[in-house]
Amino acid sequence: MRIGILGGGQLGRMLALAGIPLGLQFRFLDPEASACAADAGELIVGDYTDTATLDRFLDGVDCVTYEFENVPLVTAEYVSARVPLYPSARSLEVAQDRLEEKTRFQALGIPTPRFAAVDSRSELDEALRIVGGSAILKTRRLGYDGKGQARIESAEDADTAWGQLGGQPLILEERIMFARELSILVARARDNSIAFYPLTENHHRDGILRLSLAPAPGITLDLQNLATRIGHALLRDLGHVGVLAVELFQVPGGLMANEIAPRVHNSGHWTIDGAVTSQFENHLRAILGLTLGDVSPIGRSAMLNFIGDAPDISQLSGVPGAHVHLYRKDARPGRKVGHVTLVGADEAGLMPKVAALQRMADTITS
Amino acid sequence: MRIGILGGGQLGRMLALAGIPLGLQFRFLDPEASACAADAGELIVGDYTDTATLDRFLDGVDCVTYEFENVPLVTAEYVSARVPLYPSARSLEVAQDRLEEKTRFQALGIPTPRFAAVDSRSELDEALRIVGGSAILKTRRLGYDGKGQARIESAEDADTAWGQLGGQPLILEERIMFARELSILVARARDNSIAFYPLTENHHRDGILRLSLAPAPGITLDLQNLATRIGHALLRDLGHVGVLAVELFQVPGGLMANEIAPRVHNSGHWTIDGAVTSQFENHLRAILGLTLGDVSPIGRSAMLNFIGDAPDISQLSGVPGAHVHLYRKDARPGRKVGHVTLVGADEAGLMPKVAALQRMADTITS
Repeated sequence: MRIGILGGGQLGRMLALAGIPLGLQFRFLDPEASACAADAGELIVGDYTDTATLDRFLDGVDCVTYEFENVPLVTAEYVSARVPLYPSARSLEVAQDRLEEKTRFQALGIPTPRFAAVDSRSELDEALRIVGGSAILKTRRLGYDGKGQARIESAEDADTAWGQLGGQPLILEERIMFARELSILVARARDNSIAFYPLTENHHRDGILRLSLAPAPGITLDLQNLATRIGHALLRDLGHVGVLAVELFQVPGGLMANEIAPRVHNSGHWTIDGAVTSQFENHLRAILGLTLGDVSPIGRSAMLNFIGDAPDISQLSGVPGAHVHLYRKDARPGRKVGHVTLVGADEAGLMPKVAALQRMADTITS
Repeated sequence: MRIGILGGGQLGRMLALAGIPLGLQFRFLDPEASACAADAGELIVGDYTDTATLDRFLDGVDCVTYEFENVPLVTAEYVSARVPLYPSARSLEVAQDRLEEKTRFQALGIPTPRFAAVDSRSELDEALRIVGGSAILKTRRLGYDGKGQARIESAEDADTAWGQLGGQPLILEERIMFARELSILVARARDNSIAFYPLTENHHRDGILRLSLAPAPGITLDLQNLATRIGHALLRDLGHVGVLAVELFQVPGGLMANEIAPRVHNSGHWTIDGAVTSQFENHLRAILGLTLGDVSPIGRSAMLNFIGDAPDISQLSGVPGAHVHLYRKDARPGRKVGHVTLVGADEAGLMPKVAALQRMADTITS
């Protein structure tokens, strides 16, 4: 069976590495000839909206999925008219637009920061009155890793933010004083069965995920259940098939949903080495109509991203127990080029190793 | 960095799946266009002794290894004159010839069944007097999975065995009444550092490995140490770099060495899912001059081979906790086409699942 993946980055690469042992073959579509997934499958280089390219990509493919949420909707429609596409275009549609996304949260009764659509300078002032004094102005579409965002704390900030982002559909969001950032990865199979990983604690630096701890330390059963209910509500509402990531804020009294990703997610990379079945394998199981695999963690995991550049494999191989994942991407500021996962019996034992890896990474990129 | 692998079967495939996350790329050389490693790298189809093919294979490759011990020595010499080859031709030379192999065991003081070279019918009679009445006549070269072997218990058996195998270099080996078959996987890096996995218990059916349990149940520290000493002696004697598998018999009073494989080995497949670092990753770490990874098991593992044919992924996905490995090889009697590993806290919990998988497999192949 051959799986087509829209996008040929590290998520596609890791999907293939999880799927080849299941007897699957992979084909990727990516505009870049250097797409790193090519190490684990066939790469078609071309534009996502070029129908000749799409036909070539789809020829002999049994099922299609995607590794990024900004797949053009026309592409999703073209594909799904020919080959089963999971998750469906509906998940893309909601995830591509922050306003749609937050509106769904609200409709489903999922707590989310206050928000308002902003399409003009005067709407920004109005939105600031609704949302409150401490806010973030964001593009509704195509933002990731903290890009397309501006903080607003004062009237002058509003002008600056508008100067920076104005002229495209925007959303103003309340800036939440959260205790910590969490995420939950949930998977829904074609038979409607659902599985969820334990909550993961995420730490960002410059808007980019740097460190994930899983299971998130000190999570009560109530909080895990709350996250699971949020995940399930979204899966059912979207008719989502595959893995869905929900980014959450832990706030006094519970959780707030921040955003979703209708795909495997960086905060779930720890599952490759730290869970019985990885998010990548479970995404494939879900979209192929197979039974979902055991999502139990096998210990406590810490996943550290390498951003911009990564230490050499000869350095990394010297860190006892480090599970190394290098994506073979050229170094570039802000780019995720690899990660390492450590698995142990408790966080206390992991943290000194994480700190050493962090110093190793900082030496490379500074 | 690009690694060349002589042979494109499932061992090459699993080496690549372990190496791609380290940032490595793979190229395979195999005479078969259908070689299953092609899913995880570039496949060159051609003969191992054709220099034009070898030149194409070696072009741009940084290091070469092999996934089967019957690589022609002329190939190993041609390759190693151009690119670093690990393990070296010396390991191949010894492993390719049962007489060489057993002679090395003897020279190193490693207990092994009695044996004698047999090149003529009269030498067979003489050998039977030395070795004893219950023996196995084997081809010295190219035997695997029980092929090229004949049991001898009587004078008539000797005639039959000679009729079957005579006319090529043979070895007669004492048939040992062992308690069980074990194996140990050891790895030696380029800096001479050594790592070893726990002893594995192996069960064969029709001469083909069917089930491995690791760590082997009820192993004393003395026995593990004895196996480790055997492994270390062989690694040092051969100047071996990479993983080496030693097949052993447990006998009253200790262990006897049966044979070696100078490569990753079927009885080490459990390490993919059941150890911190797999035999495949450690083989690559060893040959690339990296630090060897942690060989600790993460629980008790049971690995079941699928021979001839394998259940469908849709059936296998329904077995909770089963780590599925299908090689995408066509069904054929006696052929290893996949395996499943189960990892748990104790064997008692694993065995019912193993039995269910065994029944599933038997239904397919019967």
